[in-house]
Amino acid sequence: MRNFKLCLCYDGSRYRGWQKQGNTPDAIQGKVEALLSRSLEQPVELHGSGRTDAGVHARCQTCSFRADTPLSCPELLELIRRYLPEDIGALSLEEAEASFHARLSCRGKSYVYFVWNSPEPNVFYRKYSFNCPQKLNIAAMREAAKALLGEHDFTSFCSLKRMKKSPVRRLDAVEISREGDMLRLKFSGGGFLYNMVRILTGTLIEVGLGERRAEDIPAVLAACDRQAAGFTAPAHGLFLWEQSY
Amino acid sequence: MRNFKLCLCYDGSRYRGWQKQGNTPDAIQGKVEALLSRSLEQPVELHGSGRTDAGVHARCQTCSFRADTPLSCPELLELIRRYLPEDIGALSLEEAEASFHARLSCRGKSYVYFVWNSPEPNVFYRKYSFNCPQKLNIAAMREAAKALLGEHDFTSFCSLKRMKKSPVRRLDAVEISREGDMLRLKFSGGGFLYNMVRILTGTLIEVGLGERRAEDIPAVLAACDRQAAGFTAPAHGLFLWEQSY
Repeated sequence: MRNFKLCLCYDGSRYRGWQKQGNTPDAIQGKVEALLSRSLEQPVELHGSGRTDAGVHARCQTCSFRADTPLSCPELLELIRRYLPEDIGALSLEEAEASFHARLSCRGKSYVYFVWNSPEPNVFYRKYSFNCPQKLNIAAMREAAKALLGEHDFTSFCSLKRMKKSPVRRLDAVEISREGDMLRLKFSGGGFLYNMVRILTGTLIEVGLGERRAEDIPAVLAACDRQAAGFTAPAHGLFLWEQSY
Repeated sequence: MRNFKLCLCYDGSRYRGWQKQGNTPDAIQGKVEALLSRSLEQPVELHGSGRTDAGVHARCQTCSFRADTPLSCPELLELIRRYLPEDIGALSLEEAEASFHARLSCRGKSYVYFVWNSPEPNVFYRKYSFNCPQKLNIAAMREAAKALLGEHDFTSFCSLKRMKKSPVRRLDAVEISREGDMLRLKFSGGGFLYNMVRILTGTLIEVGLGERRAEDIPAVLAACDRQAAGFTAPAHGLFLWEQSY
């Protein structure tokens, strides 16, 4: 059996998210797994670096799968590209070491959240960014972001009521940049809880709007209570961005 | 009656084009006219700088309309924004001189055609660019574009079989630039024939692919025959870009 590393991009708009659940055809993992199994004529299991929620996009979702095939990587990549739907793209394919696993080997990853920040609408980015026409105080948002860095119990930034695993995560960097009217929030870290990036973004937007202060972020973390943090920014502005191995 | 200048942007994907025909609800002009008439409680006629075909987008389509209203421009703009569908945006609204007419006063306009030029797919631009994975010779395309500049009979670059009006147009500039894997062809001129920008683009792509030579462009123009030019590039890569008055 050979082991492969496949990088996918996808427009999450019409999917229920990455992870397959039962036989629903509207999960990206299930869709690609079915395609691989059919075209390689063997059952293929596809592992992604992590889940993405319904409606969340991926600029790059690193995946791994094992298969027995005489095809070269370029041939296999061409075969995959031929059958993928137009909203899922295969960026690259290479053979990986036997021990490589897209989720278990992942050392860190990043997400980018896009905010269209102008009273003038942009119809072309409407499905790929959150529309916030009000003025945002970027300096205050950066200040608040600093307080989030490092290892913390991020329970306040998680939508799950009961967690089986530890709510402690390490946030390595939050970069907030602006290009024209588009604001870009990049979050890098070891791992993220359910809805964590969207709640971090919602909270930072509330700071930008002057609805809460940067100084209050430590208290939000300390509360360990979802009610203490800001709103959950909508899925369609979020992109799984890159992974490190 | 006051006269207004309104700039719209739109995602043309789900529309039959700019121009209303009868009572079909799927033309952008008809959609916005109906909205203006309803919210201003009077019949409003909306004039655009020109038509766009089915599926073509507009970064900026300058429009004009006359109406009797006590509302200020910011108030009226807010009213319009409230009722527009999510794929049509109002960029700006201002009061214009009585003689201003979006089409008749227009002195020149430009279109931009986007070509995604990489073997790696980009799912996020799939509805806003033509996908061309093969390598393109940009220098040859620029050379060919030079031969198109100036005043010519553009019959070879028009899809209409019989034209009532003159097929002579003036092409002022063709700028071909690349940002990463995205190629951008900007056409500026006094006016354009039916499908002209899409056929110019298709012909330049064929030059870029090495399927025809830059030196042959004068003969294509001289032929005054649609068969002499290249393919009609698809509508979804084309944007009406800007107008001058």
